[in-house]
Amino acid sequence: MTTPHRGAARTEAIMRATLELGQEIGYAKLSIEAIAARAGAGKHTVYRRWPSKGALLLDSLLSLHQSSLDFPDTGDIVADLRTQMYAALDLLGSPPFGPLYQALVGEAQNDPQVAAALNGRFITPQADKTVARLKTAQEQGQLSPAFDLSLAMAILSGPLYFQFLITQEPLTHEYADRVIHALFDGMGTP
Amino acid sequence: MTTPHRGAARTEAIMRATLELGQEIGYAKLSIEAIAARAGAGKHTVYRRWPSKGALLLDSLLSLHQSSLDFPDTGDIVADLRTQMYAALDLLGSPPFGPLYQALVGEAQNDPQVAAALNGRFITPQADKTVARLKTAQEQGQLSPAFDLSLAMAILSGPLYFQFLITQEPLTHEYADRVIHALFDGMGTP
Repeated sequence: MTTPHRGAARTEAIMRATLELGQEIGYAKLSIEAIAARAGAGKHTVYRRWPSKGALLLDSLLSLHQSSLDFPDTGDIVADLRTQMYAALDLLGSPPFGPLYQALVGEAQNDPQVAAALNGRFITPQADKTVARLKTAQEQGQLSPAFDLSLAMAILSGPLYFQFLITQEPLTHEYADRVIHALFDGMGTP
Repeated sequence: MTTPHRGAARTEAIMRATLELGQEIGYAKLSIEAIAARAGAGKHTVYRRWPSKGALLLDSLLSLHQSSLDFPDTGDIVADLRTQMYAALDLLGSPPFGPLYQALVGEAQNDPQVAAALNGRFITPQADKTVARLKTAQEQGQLSPAFDLSLAMAILSGPLYFQFLITQEPLTHEYADRVIHALFDGMGTP
């Protein structure tokens, strides 16, 4: 009767060891062997559950962020987007999540399985939440009726990911403010 | 007197070998040894000029795209952005540039030197061109006077990079049209 509990505790220990070691030595130097040793588990126990280092890191990261990326609904779409984007930037901007998530996205460029898992388990659920919140705003007349909701995630997150992955400049709340402002007002002449 | 010419020809041969081999076997399996052999050059000749595989790939990719990412100026900012974004998507969507550029961005997530070179030699010059074209449009009254030009690259390229790196869905001209439309009109109620 205690096996499921022991299994869950071991899974948790392995994910915690992944995040700790990843933060200490960086993703590139991280090995399944070292993670298993830190967690007091066998290497094969880790491989039985996770096919690759990328898959293990994804699970470990998802165990961290939990619900901090949910959208609030105060009735004010701009304020709510701001709250959510601040939380996302804070998460991306601090260890262990930030540097390890960056490494995971890097891994996804070379490993289609990691890319698929990242999308299926993290990006798509986030996109669904984003669309749901914007749809409510659109119904309440706070968002342009013409706004293409299927673009929501790419339009809102794209500029942040660009800064996070490409220019690699610091992610500040002020940056989020400017992006939201630009996206709401549009580039065109009023 | 022929040394500089021989040097240039050898540099070109090495970059061509990088792109050819990269397309054949993928970036992950690419080695400096194999590139040198294909180019008929010594391994040390390659290392003398390029400190890493990432640096060599960046130079090789930059030798390809040349001026195809310049912005035209027909006087119509929306048409010109569309032309440029189509060219960018076509480049990203086809080998050898697309898959190798994707691998390079992946490498930049783990190697700060590659990230710095990517920014200094490719992203920043592209951002400067983008701002220059948008500034002209702003002066001509085709762009909102309030639009924050320092965000130009992140706002315009962010959604494309998001699709290219994260969702990894096909990059189509229709997608560029929708992004430009959304960015010009804005998300807010008119």
